[in-house]
Amino acid sequence: MSEIIKLVHGAGGVETQKIIKELIANFTLRKVKNGTGIDELDDSALIPISKDEYLAITMDSYTVNPIFFPGGDIGKLAACGTINDVAVMGAKPIAILDSIVVEEGFPKDTLLRIMSSFRRVIEKEKIALIGGDFKVMPKGSLDKIIISTVGVGIVKKKNLLTDFNVKPGDKIIVSGSVGEHGTVILALQLGLDLGNLKSDCDTVTRIIEVAQQIGGIHAAKDPTRGGLAMALNEFAQKSKVTIVIDEEKIPIKEEVRSCTEMLGVDPLALACEGRVVLAVDKEKAEDIVKVLRKEGYTEATIIGEVTNEEPGLVLLRSKVGGLRILEPPLGEIVPRIC
Amino acid sequence: MSEIIKLVHGAGGVETQKIIKELIANFTLRKVKNGTGIDELDDSALIPISKDEYLAITMDSYTVNPIFFPGGDIGKLAACGTINDVAVMGAKPIAILDSIVVEEGFPKDTLLRIMSSFRRVIEKEKIALIGGDFKVMPKGSLDKIIISTVGVGIVKKKNLLTDFNVKPGDKIIVSGSVGEHGTVILALQLGLDLGNLKSDCDTVTRIIEVAQQIGGIHAAKDPTRGGLAMALNEFAQKSKVTIVIDEEKIPIKEEVRSCTEMLGVDPLALACEGRVVLAVDKEKAEDIVKVLRKEGYTEATIIGEVTNEEPGLVLLRSKVGGLRILEPPLGEIVPRIC
Repeated sequence: MSEIIKLVHGAGGVETQKIIKELIANFTLRKVKNGTGIDELDDSALIPISKDEYLAITMDSYTVNPIFFPGGDIGKLAACGTINDVAVMGAKPIAILDSIVVEEGFPKDTLLRIMSSFRRVIEKEKIALIGGDFKVMPKGSLDKIIISTVGVGIVKKKNLLTDFNVKPGDKIIVSGSVGEHGTVILALQLGLDLGNLKSDCDTVTRIIEVAQQIGGIHAAKDPTRGGLAMALNEFAQKSKVTIVIDEEKIPIKEEVRSCTEMLGVDPLALACEGRVVLAVDKEKAEDIVKVLRKEGYTEATIIGEVTNEEPGLVLLRSKVGGLRILEPPLGEIVPRIC
Repeated sequence: MSEIIKLVHGAGGVETQKIIKELIANFTLRKVKNGTGIDELDDSALIPISKDEYLAITMDSYTVNPIFFPGGDIGKLAACGTINDVAVMGAKPIAILDSIVVEEGFPKDTLLRIMSSFRRVIEKEKIALIGGDFKVMPKGSLDKIIISTVGVGIVKKKNLLTDFNVKPGDKIIVSGSVGEHGTVILALQLGLDLGNLKSDCDTVTRIIEVAQQIGGIHAAKDPTRGGLAMALNEFAQKSKVTIVIDEEKIPIKEEVRSCTEMLGVDPLALACEGRVVLAVDKEKAEDIVKVLRKEGYTEATIIGEVTNEEPGLVLLRSKVGGLRILEPPLGEIVPRIC
């Protein structure tokens, strides 16, 4: 019998990496000219458009369930997620396209409300909606709605950030507390009480902008599916470095901690939708944190540093100094998390 | 009670135009600089990238049912449909991204087979796959698979084709027989015998290339959802011209004619997935048809001409000279046609 696709293949962890690599294995044209593409699998692909500029382009499909949640909805999430994948390349997002597939019978006012959320985010960022598609599937063939989104940005080569340029000696900064989006969606799916917890769903353009004014950023990533654990492991694997994180320095909200403890889930493997992880020159790290906090990102923190002792590994250092490996997430944690 | 989204909103006709206009009504940023975007709603949006070049970008979601059909499958369709939306702008497609959402339990070998079809099309056209996304939805929340695709191309301003530049005096050319894709999908959904009929699913890049060598093309469009009827009405409305079509000159395969007659469906409203409609300088029309036929597009035909008597209307001229209006398609014909 043929193997089947399981939920875990979409979880954003090791199994997702594996199936994506299988699906794209036979493609021979994997980037445009000296840009980047499906070998790099960075947050955006890069197409050279002039001597000193790239076009950054990213694409995602949003299947989040429920479609409305404290802190956002599928429209806001689609806009933020796509903008963030452009922004973490150091690119300025300029255009977005969206393709909406809805189930027959979906209420029109709900759809208009979702489009409003989407619009508010992109217009605040001065990004134009330039195209898309609209399809309807018969009742029973789709649970509510899927929004696919394309983000387009422009980046000067000198401002380019990738996820494979982390350097030994760098400090690792996280822009805020982690795991909120994933915890909110998980709790809602299980019918648990959220208290005051909200998704962190937001754009990260300002974070990148402010940090780039200080300079010294070597790599940036938004820790979505697979959470901080996946983002750090991608940094370590792609840049062939060791990342050592001080466990107690990772900002995690009390509600996230208690909810994930109760459910036996690692908050480090849960998606954020408005955070950035940065690998920065150690001389600039304090200044970047300072300016981020001043800008309102009050939980921005240096959480660790980069060495070259065990290339490809992420290590968690406990309060008392013990080290353990932070594996890339394995298994299905939350279906339809984003 | 709130209005609901119906199948007809996704049919590609008048109701689709209407709901899309509602969804995008409040967006204030509708294009990038002096490019085109959601006001034009052309096959691709245009972003100026240099003094004499645009980036053409298009996005579609493919929900076709069944996912395999004579002449293609959802992978081939996604590749062709997206490439064609770039090609009809006169642009050279250079990159594609795909976002796949599958239902839990989908067979992996079926997915790999779909990816192979997709790959064969884009690599034949020398287009790179540069990114995408992969999501899995729990069993029962999606019927099989949706593939969303983004196409990126480059077009020199002097080669640019839009769908709003049709001029009085132009001849209208169709590159081949119409309605095959739609008829095939409709027949399969109804469990009817197809005989030898196959979808026309194919790329149109070569058609545009060959025609551009002759020159004199004023507008191009691939008649997908809503078929030839919708494509001609878009030409007429956007260019504020009258299009007069000689009904008996429209190439329609006998199998399409008999099947659609039996079902009471207008073949002119059924999707093609490998055809182009061109509005061309009357002096060049014969030469374009000649060269297309020589290239293997043996049914390429001049089917009508453009006047300015009734701007916005498409008229069908019968054998005996009577004229009737060819309305843009209204109502749901085939759900999940593409």
